[in-house]
Amino acid sequence: MTRAELIQQIKIKKSFLCVGLDTDITKIPEHLLAEEDPIYTFNKAIIDATSDLCVAYKPNIAFYESYGIKGWQSLQKTWEALPKDCLSIADAKRGDIGNTSKMYAQAFFDEKQSGLGFDSITIAPYMGNDSVTPFLDFDGKWAIVLALTSNAGSLDFQNFKNESGLQLFEQVIDKVNTWGTIENLMYVVGATRGEGFIKIREHAPDHFLLVPGVGAQGGSLQDVCQYGMNKDCGLLVNSTRGIIYASKGHDFAEKAREEALKLQQEMEAELIKAGIIR
Amino acid sequence: MTRAELIQQIKIKKSFLCVGLDTDITKIPEHLLAEEDPIYTFNKAIIDATSDLCVAYKPNIAFYESYGIKGWQSLQKTWEALPKDCLSIADAKRGDIGNTSKMYAQAFFDEKQSGLGFDSITIAPYMGNDSVTPFLDFDGKWAIVLALTSNAGSLDFQNFKNESGLQLFEQVIDKVNTWGTIENLMYVVGATRGEGFIKIREHAPDHFLLVPGVGAQGGSLQDVCQYGMNKDCGLLVNSTRGIIYASKGHDFAEKAREEALKLQQEMEAELIKAGIIR
Repeated sequence: MTRAELIQQIKIKKSFLCVGLDTDITKIPEHLLAEEDPIYTFNKAIIDATSDLCVAYKPNIAFYESYGIKGWQSLQKTWEALPKDCLSIADAKRGDIGNTSKMYAQAFFDEKQSGLGFDSITIAPYMGNDSVTPFLDFDGKWAIVLALTSNAGSLDFQNFKNESGLQLFEQVIDKVNTWGTIENLMYVVGATRGEGFIKIREHAPDHFLLVPGVGAQGGSLQDVCQYGMNKDCGLLVNSTRGIIYASKGHDFAEKAREEALKLQQEMEAELIKAGIIR
Repeated sequence: MTRAELIQQIKIKKSFLCVGLDTDITKIPEHLLAEEDPIYTFNKAIIDATSDLCVAYKPNIAFYESYGIKGWQSLQKTWEALPKDCLSIADAKRGDIGNTSKMYAQAFFDEKQSGLGFDSITIAPYMGNDSVTPFLDFDGKWAIVLALTSNAGSLDFQNFKNESGLQLFEQVIDKVNTWGTIENLMYVVGATRGEGFIKIREHAPDHFLLVPGVGAQGGSLQDVCQYGMNKDCGLLVNSTRGIIYASKGHDFAEKAREEALKLQQEMEAELIKAGIIR
C-alpha cells in the first residue's frame, strides 16, 4: 500500500485507526475454545466486524509465535483474512545484521517464499543501518522503526542524551530519515506523553507515525492529535485491548465494533478539526 | 543449562565454540535439495559432525522464519536434534513491551506451549527494562542482550556518547546488569574490534559474552581471547560460514568437522595459555 493509498483510505473511512491483533487465547471468549483454530476464528470475527472503521491491522507476532508451528498457522490464516484496503502491519520488532534482516524481510514481505505478504513491519534500530535498510528494498513495503515507545522501560535508553542534549530517539530518527523516504518509512511513537510529539515532529514532520498506547496504556487521542497530526494526518493510532477484549461473551465482535466505532467517530472529529476532511 | 554446567562443558570439550546454524537453502549442497526437509537434513549432519567440538549451537531464527510455516517446522526438528550437552541459543534478537516479551519468552523457552525449549535467546535492548526482564523469569534460561555488535551499522547508535563520555553500549550493560545476574545474563559483543573487549570487561568482568564475527566477518580469535577472556573463560565464540559452508559437496559434514576441529584446537591452546585447563 502506497502513502497516497493510505491517505485516501483515511479520507474514505474518516479514520486513522489501527486495530491490534494481540490475540491471547486466555482472553478470548470461552465458547471459541471449541473451534479448531480459536485464535484465527476470533481474529476473523474481529476483522469482519471492524474493517470499515479502521485503516490498518497489526497482528503482534509474539502472540502467534508463542504457540510455535500452530501459532504460525493461525498467523498465516489471519494474514489471508486481512482486507486489501487496510495496511497490514507485522508487529515483529525485528532487526539484525544485513543478511539476516533480509531474511526477516522475506519472512514478512515475500509471499511467494514465506506465505506472508504484509505491507509493513516494525523494526528495532539498535543494530543500525544494515539492520534497517533491507526492509526498505521491497517496493510498496514499509519499515516502521521504533523511535519513542510507550512502555515503562522506554526511558532506560531512548532518552540517553549526548553532549549537545540530543536524545537517542532523536538521533535514531535523524539517521534513519537518511536511509529511506516518507514513502517507505514510519516511526513508532508511544501515545503516553502527548507533548513528546512536538519533538518528534521537529525531526519527522512528514512521516506517518504508528502510535500505540491510546486507551489501556493511558494515552489520550486528543493530545496525540494536537501535537502529532500533520497535513496528511500522518498518524495511525493503534488500539488493541479496548477493542478486541471489549466483551468475553458471544457478543465480542459486536462489542468490538462498538468500541472501534467510538474511536472512529472521535478520529473523524479530529480530521474535520484539522481540515483534512469535511 | 546453568553457568556451572556450561563452564564444565568448556573444560571437558576444551572448546568455547558456538556453531551458527544460519542455514540458507541457496548455500547448502545441491544433492540435499532432493530431501523432504533439506534445511533440517543439513543441520542434522552438521550437528552430528561437530557436537563433540563445540559447546553451543545457535540457529539464526530469521533463516527459518523466512520460509514461514515450513521454516518453523525445520526449526522445530533442528531444536530437537540439538544435543543436551550443548547450550542452545535462539538467535532471535527479540524484545517488546513486557506482556509481549513474555510471549516471545514462551515461544523459545516454554517447550510445553510452543514445542521449543531453547536454553537462551538473543535480545535487542532498545525498549528497556520490561522488554528484557520477562526472559529472566525462566529458571535455568539465559537472556543474551545485544551490547556492541560486529556489523557496519553498529556504530550508528551503539557508540552514541553522553556528556560524561559514556557510550550507549556501556549504558546498556550497566543498566541490564542490574536486572539479572551472571547466571542468567550474557552479552553479544562482536569480535571485529578486539580492543573493544577492554571496555566491555570494565562493565561486565564476569559475564559470559557471545562473540560473533570471528572468521568471515574478520575478527581474530587471539585478540578476542587476549582482551575478552576471564577466569571462567567467559566467552562463547561463534563461527558460522567458515564451518557450515566449508564445502558444497557430499563431504560438507566432514569439511565442517575439519574447520570446527581447527577452531577447537586454537581454543584449547587459548584455554591452556589462560590456565583454565591443562
